Amino acid sequence: MTIAGAVIGLDIGGSKTRGIRWLDGTAEADASGGSANVQNVSRTQARKNLEGVFARLRGGPISEVVAGSGGIDTAHDAKALTELIQPLAPGAVVTVVHDTRLLLAAADCSSGIAVIAGTGSAAWGTTGGHHARAGGWGYLLGDEGSGYWFGREAVRYSLERMNHGHPADELTQALLEACGIPGPEALIALFHSGAGRQYWAGMSRLVFEHAATGHPAALEMIDQPEPISPRWRQNARNN
Amino acid sequence: MTIAGAVIGLDIGGSKTRGIRWLDGTAEADASGGSANVQNVSRTQARKNLEGVFARLRGGPISEVVAGSGGIDTAHDAKALTELIQPLAPGAVVTVVHDTRLLLAAADCSSGIAVIAGTGSAAWGTTGGHHARAGGWGYLLGDEGSGYWFGREAVRYSLERMNHGHPADELTQALLEACGIPGPEALIALFHSGAGRQYWAGMSRLVFEHAATGHPAALEMIDQPEPISPRWRQNARNN
Repeated sequence: MTIAGAVIGLDIGGSKTRGIRWLDGTAEADASGGSANVQNVSRTQARKNLEGVFARLRGGPISEVVAGSGGIDTAHDAKALTELIQPLAPGAVVTVVHDTRLLLAAADCSSGIAVIAGTGSAAWGTTGGHHARAGGWGYLLGDEGSGYWFGREAVRYSLERMNHGHPADELTQALLEACGIPGPEALIALFHSGAGRQYWAGMSRLVFEHAATGHPAALEMIDQPEPISPRWRQNARNN
Repeated sequence: MTIAGAVIGLDIGGSKTRGIRWLDGTAEADASGGSANVQNVSRTQARKNLEGVFARLRGGPISEVVAGSGGIDTAHDAKALTELIQPLAPGAVVTVVHDTRLLLAAADCSSGIAVIAGTGSAAWGTTGGHHARAGGWGYLLGDEGSGYWFGREAVRYSLERMNHGHPADELTQALLEACGIPGPEALIALFHSGAGRQYWAGMSRLVFEHAATGHPAALEMIDQPEPISPRWRQNARNN
């Protein structure tokens, strides 16, 4: 198949956007910028970040853009992102899909299960024309197992200990040091003060580091089996 | 005890601020305005809402202001709110406490357990000089059993059904109609689009209405025993 002009592929996550420019089947340029997920950042910020990536990719006419992004759940979501991309690639065919769709395609698989666990999280599987999805609901509704989710669990654990009158343990101490605050009670205001998803996703490494040294609660966070109540999950399944 | 000038009492919740002006032990004025919880709204908005309440309370010199608010977890939090109140009551003694502290005082109890379940949630108990607290962590970290939390649970339930390929049931249908959207997949963007805590707290009534008619998942949401993993709660307690 011959395509006149370049093809741009975009992978848009909760923290960054990565773009690759292909010409005649060869990757010619590779550039990254901030997130352009329009559910994570403002439209203005998303446009600016996309402009940055396209500027760094340079090159001539673009015939096609394929973008995978978190937060693409409806035709309306896809249209909103398409409208940001189209002016950067005049005349190109722009296709926007949920970012889970990129993984199996990249692995050249027609069936399988794709799992994303970055700042946010989602899973999507397909086989024999059937599709199934779990998660990808965004940080306010889910994203279990994401970086943000682990960072928040570390905060919740530290507050739970505080409520029980216990001193800060190793995990809490590491968290307080990383945040530059004196005690767990200050975590509440810090968490609601606008320290963003990427900030707390960055704290997830503390959970993994402490799990590696056998910290029971850190191990438990990684192993947490049911973020949704088992009984109402049952109701959601059966009714 | 004689106090020259009025005493103002403020109850500052996630959705509104209520103020009462007392003179010589008699309530003389009662006024409400928007939230002045500086973790819920901007400082500018909090100042504006407080100005509105004080303007509606009218009256002469104020000798003392006692304010209870969610989000007052540290001396720094109390100072930030005090600084907003002080210019509205020049020369007055301003005391800021966590809003749970208001309840036992209002009931004239020196020991007991105060539970708040409004837009947010918190519990605080005291007996024999000992204090204990649960919750009051704010909407990003907890607030289990709050209006916002129930609204979010209804959204999560509807998305869980969607993931399992089920049609909208009565609860989901009621939620979609209240939100004015065609399908559950649009809930994800709506939830992250800036529809606020009060908006979702308002949806909590759907959970209670459906629980009253025996909807299994709505009943389950109300009965949900463990928003925090039982095992790491155990770790938080014991280590």
